[in-house]
Order: sequence, then C-alpha cells, then structure tokens
Amino acid sequence: MATKAQVLYDFTAEPGNNELSVREGETITITNQSIGGGWIEAQNSRGEIGLVPEDYVEVRITDRPKGTLGHKARHYSHTYTQLRVCLCVCCNGNDPWAVFDNNASGGFSNNWAAQPEGTETGKNSSNAWGSTSYGHPQAYQGPGAEDDEWDDEWDERKSSGYTEGETGEGGAITRGGAHGSSMKIIGEVGPVWEYPDSQLDCVVADPKKGSKMYGLKSYIEYQTTNRPVNHRYKHFDWLYERLLEKFGSAIPIPSLPDKQVTGRFEEEFIKMRMERLQAWMTRMCRHPVVANSEVFQLFLNYKDEKDWKTGKRKAEKDETVGVMIFSTIEPEGLPDLELLEVEQKCEQFSRFTKAMDDGVKDLLTVGHEHWKRCTGPLPKEYQRIGKALQNLSSVFTSSGYEGEATLTDAMTAAGKTYEEIAQMVAEQPKKDLHFLMETNNEYKGLLGCFPDTIGVHKAAIEKVKEADKLVATNKITTTEKVTMGKRASTMSYALQAEMNHFHSNRIYDYNRVMQLYLEQQVKFYETIAEKLRHAHSQFTTM
Amino acid sequence: MATKAQVLYDFTAEPGNNELSVREGETITITNQSIGGGWIEAQNSRGEIGLVPEDYVEVRITDRPKGTLGHKARHYSHTYTQLRVCLCVCCNGNDPWAVFDNNASGGFSNNWAAQPEGTETGKNSSNAWGSTSYGHPQAYQGPGAEDDEWDDEWDERKSSGYTEGETGEGGAITRGGAHGSSMKIIGEVGPVWEYPDSQLDCVVADPKKGSKMYGLKSYIEYQTTNRPVNHRYKHFDWLYERLLEKFGSAIPIPSLPDKQVTGRFEEEFIKMRMERLQAWMTRMCRHPVVANSEVFQLFLNYKDEKDWKTGKRKAEKDETVGVMIFSTIEPEGLPDLELLEVEQKCEQFSRFTKAMDDGVKDLLTVGHEHWKRCTGPLPKEYQRIGKALQNLSSVFTSSGYEGEATLTDAMTAAGKTYEEIAQMVAEQPKKDLHFLMETNNEYKGLLGCFPDTIGVHKAAIEKVKEADKLVATNKITTTEKVTMGKRASTMSYALQAEMNHFHSNRIYDYNRVMQLYLEQQVKFYETIAEKLRHAHSQFTTM
Repeated sequence: MATKAQVLYDFTAEPGNNELSVREGETITITNQSIGGGWIEAQNSRGEIGLVPEDYVEVRITDRPKGTLGHKARHYSHTYTQLRVCLCVCCNGNDPWAVFDNNASGGFSNNWAAQPEGTETGKNSSNAWGSTSYGHPQAYQGPGAEDDEWDDEWDERKSSGYTEGETGEGGAITRGGAHGSSMKIIGEVGPVWEYPDSQLDCVVADPKKGSKMYGLKSYIEYQTTNRPVNHRYKHFDWLYERLLEKFGSAIPIPSLPDKQVTGRFEEEFIKMRMERLQAWMTRMCRHPVVANSEVFQLFLNYKDEKDWKTGKRKAEKDETVGVMIFSTIEPEGLPDLELLEVEQKCEQFSRFTKAMDDGVKDLLTVGHEHWKRCTGPLPKEYQRIGKALQNLSSVFTSSGYEGEATLTDAMTAAGKTYEEIAQMVAEQPKKDLHFLMETNNEYKGLLGCFPDTIGVHKAAIEKVKEADKLVATNKITTTEKVTMGKRASTMSYALQAEMNHFHSNRIYDYNRVMQLYLEQQVKFYETIAEKLRHAHSQFTTM
Repeated sequence: MATKAQVLYDFTAEPGNNELSVREGETITITNQSIGGGWIEAQNSRGEIGLVPEDYVEVRITDRPKGTLGHKARHYSHTYTQLRVCLCVCCNGNDPWAVFDNNASGGFSNNWAAQPEGTETGKNSSNAWGSTSYGHPQAYQGPGAEDDEWDDEWDERKSSGYTEGETGEGGAITRGGAHGSSMKIIGEVGPVWEYPDSQLDCVVADPKKGSKMYGLKSYIEYQTTNRPVNHRYKHFDWLYERLLEKFGSAIPIPSLPDKQVTGRFEEEFIKMRMERLQAWMTRMCRHPVVANSEVFQLFLNYKDEKDWKTGKRKAEKDETVGVMIFSTIEPEGLPDLELLEVEQKCEQFSRFTKAMDDGVKDLLTVGHEHWKRCTGPLPKEYQRIGKALQNLSSVFTSSGYEGEATLTDAMTAAGKTYEEIAQMVAEQPKKDLHFLMETNNEYKGLLGCFPDTIGVHKAAIEKVKEADKLVATNKITTTEKVTMGKRASTMSYALQAEMNHFHSNRIYDYNRVMQLYLEQQVKFYETIAEKLRHAHSQFTTM
C-alpha cells in the first residue's frame, strides 16, 4: 500500500517543524497524504519521517478535490446544455448594470436616471446596496498614499538572501484563461461554475529561519509550472482587497488571518498564520472564478518586478468591481428565472448560511473549551495520579518487607504510564482538534461573508419588485423592467453556482477533517489502552 | 478458559443491583472473579450475567490470600523453630503486665507499686499510655444503659420475614481455636502470626428489599459450614468496640463505615455502607488473631438467641483487654530483642505508616478530584461536542444539496458516538476508580489506627528506659527490670508480626486493586477507540 514518490527539488527542513530534508532525485515513501496545507508526510530511505511540500515530489495527490464536483460535472456535462458566459471587462462600458450599484445617498429613480456611464461608479460604491455594507476588517485603504512605502518594502526582498536559482524558468508564463470563467447547468445540483481540468495549487512556506513577519514566500505551482515567488503579508493583504473589491458581491472572499503578532507566542503565532495563509490561498486556488482572474494569476505568476508593478497598477485601475462583476456573467441560453424563484433561492441560502454559522460557532465554542481542558486541568490531573502512584510506590519500597519489588516496580510503571498519558492528553489537541477547529474557523470566516453577498441579491430583488410601480409612473420603460428581471435572474444563477461551490467544498472539507479527527482520536485512545495494558501486565496476585 | 461452577444454594437477585438469581444445582460460568466484596460475576445458561455471592457456588476462589503469606509460611515452617504462644485469659490473674497499663493520672512508680491484681484495670484504662489515646469515632458507650433497647431491636429480626430455610443446619458449631493464635518466625520476613489452614470468609448482604438501616444480614461461611445469621448495624458496632478494646493495643482495628444516612442519597449510601461493612468483615476474617477470637466466632456462629446473649455478656466481661492482650502472647524459645532493636523497629514502622498515610491521602485527594471531573464537566463537554456535531449535521441536511446524506449520516453517527462516550466517561469511575478509592479508604482507616498502636509500644519503650533509674533508686528489683525488657521484646514481636501481616495484605490488595483498575481502564479506552473507529469508517472523501 506504500506510495512512492520522486523528489523534484531540494528541500531543507525547518528545525522544530517536523519537516524532512529531501534531495532532488531521492525516492521517498508517502506515509500520510491528508496532512493538508500543501504538505505531505513522507519517510526517507533512512526511516526518517517528516513533512515535505507536496509539490516538491512527483506523485500527484489524487484525493484532493479537483474543483467543485469537477468529475461529476464533467460526467453530466454532455447531457445538458452548456452555456459559456463572458467574464471579460470589455462589455463594461455604458452598462445598465449600474442600476444595481446606485449611491446610498441618492434616491433610486434619480440614480437610475442620472447614472453616469460606466467608469468609476462600480468601484467607488460597491457597498452602497441599501442596508448592507462591507464590514470586513483590514479594509484596504487604497494604494495611492502607500505606494512609495510599499515599493520600498517590496524591494527589501532583494536583501532577504533568498535568490538561489529559483528564477529563470517559466519566464514566458501566460496569464491565460482570465476571460474563460463560465457557468454551466448540471441537472441535479443546478448551476455550477465551470471548473478547469487541472486545479491550481500553492504552497505557502516561510524560508527565513527566525524571521518575524518578513520573508513569507509562496511556492507556486500552476499546472506544470513550479517556480517560487516572494510575497510579504502586505502583498497578500493587497490581493485580498483586490479580490474583495472585484468579486465580493458574488463570491464570499474570506478575510486573511490576523496580522498582529503578540510577544511571547510569536513563533507559534507565525506558524499558525502561515498555516492559515496556506488555507486561504488553497481556498482561493480552489475557486475557479477567483483562480482564473488576472489579478490572482499575476500574484502567482509574475515574471519579474517590472511585470509585477505593471500588473499591480492595472489591477488597481480595474473597474469591473462591486456589482459590475455580474455584468460579465451572461447566461446565454439559460431560461430567465421568475422573481419568486430568485427570492426563494436567496431566502433559502440566507437561512442555511445563518444556521450553519450558528452551528459552526457552537462547535468552535465547545471545541475551545475542550481544548482548554485537554491542555490544562485534565493532564495535570493525570500527572498527579501518576505522581501519587509513584509516590506510594516509593513509600512501599521503604517498607523493608521481602517481596515488595514486584509491586513497587509495577506501581512505578503504572504511575509513569499516567504521566505519559498526561503528556499525550496535553499534546493531542494539536493533532486532531486543531484541524477541526481550523476548518470550522475557515468556515466561520466564509460564512461571515455571506450576509454581504446575499444582501446585494436581496437589494436587487427589491429593486425589481419596485419596477412595476416605476413603469406605472413612467420612471422606467417596460423594456428596462424586463432587463432588470433578466439581471436579477443572472445574479441568482451566480449565487446558486456559488452556493453549489460552497456545498461541494463543504462536504469534502467536513468529510476530510472528520476523518482526520477521528483517525487521530482512535490512535490516541488505542495508544492509551496499549500503554495501560502493558502497565496492567506487571501486577500480579499469583 | 471459562470456569464453571455449581450453585450450592438458591439466591434471589436484588433488582437494580446487577445481581443474578441462581438455583441450587444450576451450573454457571464465572465471568469475573475479581469483583471483590465476596461477589463474583457469573453467566447462566440463558446468557444472563450478574453478581452472585461467591460462597453460594462450588468453585473456590483460589487467588485470594489464604492469610498473610500463608503458603510461604507453611513452606518454610519446617526449617524454623515453631513457637506456640497462649492467647487464653487464664494467665491474666495477678499479672505484672499491668505495669504497661498504668493510669495516666498517677505517677509511674506509684502505679507500678499500687497496681491492683488483674480485674478491671486493663479494660478501663487501655488508652492511658502517656500521650497517646484512642480517638476513634463512634466510640462505643457501653452496653449497660442500652441493653434493653438493644434486645428489643434485636428481636425485630423475627418479623423481618427472612426465615426461609436458613436455620437448622450447623447447629453444633464449636467456636474452636480461640486458644490457638500464635506467632512463628519465618527467616526472611521476621515474626508472623500463625495462620489457619483454611481462611474464614463472610458475605454481608441486605436481604430486605427497600430496607433502610434495618435487616443487614451476614451470610457466614466458616470452613465447610455455611449458615446465615442476622445482624443489625448496631451489632457490628458492638463487635467493633469489643475488638478495639481487646486487640487495639496490638492490632489496628479500623473503624466501621459511617453510620449516618442522609436524605436523598439514602439508597446509594446503604449500598456503599454494605460494601464497606463487607470489606471490614473480610479484613477481620483475614486476621488470624481476630478471626480466631471467641467474640468474633460468637458473632459469626452463634447458634440461637440464648447462645448469643450468653456469649455477648461473657465478651463484655472479658478482662484481657488493652495492653493485657500482650500477656497472652508468650514467645516461647524466641530470643529476647535488645531494646535498641525494639526501638528501631518501632521507629521504622512509625515512619512507614506515617509516609503511607500521606501517600494514601494524596491518592485519595487526586482520585476524588478526578472522580468529580469524570462525572461532572468532562462528560458534559463530550455531550456538547456530540450535540454540536449532530446540530451541524441537521443544518447540513437542510441544504437541499444533492449528495449530502453520506456526510450528514456520518456526522450524526459521530455526534451520537460522542454522546455515548460522555455516558461512558460518567459511568466509568464506578467501575474502576471506585475500587481504587475504596481500597485506599480502607487503608487510610487502618493506618489511622497505627499511631495509637505504635504509641503503646513507644510508651513501653520509655518505661524500660527508665528501668535503670528505678533500680538505682530501689523502686524496682533487677529481676523486675529484666521482666520489663522481656515484655517489651514480646510486644515488639507482636508489632512485627502485625506489620508483616499488614505488608503482605497490602501487597496483595494493591496488586489486586491496580489490576482491577487498569483492566477496567483498558476496557474503557478500547471501547472508546472501537466506537470512534466505527464512526470514522462512515466518512468518505472517495
């Protein structure tokens, strides 16, 4: 059952991180593929076991989701109508989509009538949909004022001592496919995004030993290309803001892990943040629309600094942001949805995400308390039981009575066993509960984006509901009313595709994390039972 | 490996007590011999499993201690001098042992000189050894004033409805061996009491369903005789006082379990007290000197009420009490011990019992806290984890997404598993920690008696130390001084025999209870691992 793998690139283990150093050309055995975060556990020929970035080895991990329902979608695709929708920015000019993007300060009809053509509107008022507004933390303040500092800091990477032979190849990367995102209808599950055949993957690793916030580095794999680029946390933040601005109305873009570093837990904190950054990147890579976008491709594949700067400026000037993103989705050939159905779907998603948010938070609360108990009072108690047994054993040893040794040896061993159990109990949460908590934390973040996304849809529905009145008062034409209905329908398709993406990822993620959790729990209890069985065998009543 | 046993007497199970009804002549399979408290776990031909009094079945439990080092003692006995010492009351009259039994109020020499012959002295001042005194709770107030009430209550047993065919046999029981207690020297372990070939056993059971304090009943087995006698708690208390008075200077007589019954935990309390009464009786039965005494034999084997009343009055008039008990131990042929050795032994035992007392109390403290955690917050937490998983599962069910069922079924099952684990955790202490706690509680009680017992010895040593001065001042003769030394030597032999009895019982008891504890702990963790393994198998990432 052992899976062998060929090492593609040298990798030097970070001390204390359970990593394994490997050399190009070496053959290793994969011992655990479900580590997650872009890592696998492997054993080298000397029997040493440790973590290796999965894209440093030849064997492809095949049990990761190739996009949402990728295989299934392809399986069904030939029996259903396929619809290509254009996501390009070219159809942005003079677009009546701007009706869904009015300023909160003005009345509806005024805005509708006075709407200027295209340009900056979408960008500047993407959060002006009635009562909903973006409340994400760490909101991007715009690039202007910080541009100089940004580039200054960016240049620091040159002196980070991380230049060994990792450039040069893949110079001619094309940021292809930025125009290719589309939705297609799959019978059972409704609209889904179109997924690429091969999925983007990305490993976030910190190459600088003892570094603080500096030197975060992403090893990027895109199809067959595998080359490293350096990014600092600030650059991830920049990417997050671009994605939020551009896709936030249609796609939940979860916040980045917390930026702050506090005193004495610094090292652990940095490790945790890297892990979460990895999870965030993996989630973005998994999303076909996000992964395929020009800004994301730039972030992963920029050729050199000139390439990066050019792309960065272009991305910051992108006007297809806010609700304008829906203007790039044209559901050719899809039947328009009735407003009632649009509304029902929206309500259903709203109820579900709210309920799941509550459920996830509940699990996080109890998980957090369990974590505290498992790392605090519980192991202390096992340790005290262990000490009490050993203490009694040493009292017995002092009896001077013949035939004492068998009992005292056994009691000392039993006491030590409970001390070992104490340690196991204290260390266990990091091996199982941690991943359950991290997955739920990630979902908490994702679910926190839905109220905004759904809010955009609810506001659009309200506008369409007012359309009859507007027609009656000659504020809009009947044709415009029909157009509004069509657009609400398109938005609903997009939301359904996004929900289906969410559901299929969720089913995969929870299956995976529960498997990991229970597997580790079984190991934990079995190891304890085995240790106690051994301790038991040392007692005798002849 | 199954041990079969023949049922000797009908036994009707007490509902809710995990007992198994059996009929005379039935063959059952013993499934657990290490239940303790005079019970075994057995399975009948219909597959039903439950507890049965072990002396109701034919197969003898062979792994219980046949007295302290019984086999070993017999093995070595032919190579060492055997010494028989008389324990009878006949040599009590005009005995100079009274020197070790002076009133605390008088000076040493006065008492020594003025000591009246024999009579009540020993009985009335057994706690007058200098600074030490008996501080046992529930001290017996003397039978005089209560005698009428006593007998009234005693007579209640006639109306307890428990007379079916349990009298009649064994009417001609002889209370043999009351004069036969002795010590013999075994090379490696020093002086030990002489142990009978077959050990006394006794089952304490409560035959009255729903009874409160009434109707405690002891099923008594002595050698081949097996007949029930009824005793109320008060009678146990009477026995305890007799034993304490008679043997307390030489042998630790642990207090009876607490008498009080408090409101709502009444039933559980009664069960616990019965269990402790059983443990107390078993310990007394195990002690060769106690078990062989006339008063103990009376308690177990009285023929009828007349027999009991006569015996009771005789026991209450027994004058061989307090330090006078040492006068009945005459170590024929044993070399007198030097005072230094006597003192060293006494110090050693004092240190050991003090250290063990601390160790036992420490274990009880941590055990008590662990009990609270295992029956309180910990299972509540597992239950909450279980509920959180099930709750999340039912949210998922509401998604309306195709292919949800596999995950939700698995998550519900995992949630239920954690609820089961919660229950297991809460119920586990009764299956293992309980016995560890009870054994340590028993030892706490035993160890609490040692300061008094050791105090008697220390006071005797001090008297002997003063002897030279007394001779110099002509308070005693040289012959008397030699006699005092001999007596201290005898007391030391008795203490050593008692310590060796204590050690060998302790080694057996701790081996046994640790085996039971660890066995149940292994089962517990294995069952959890098995349940989680099953829960794990239901998740799938295909």
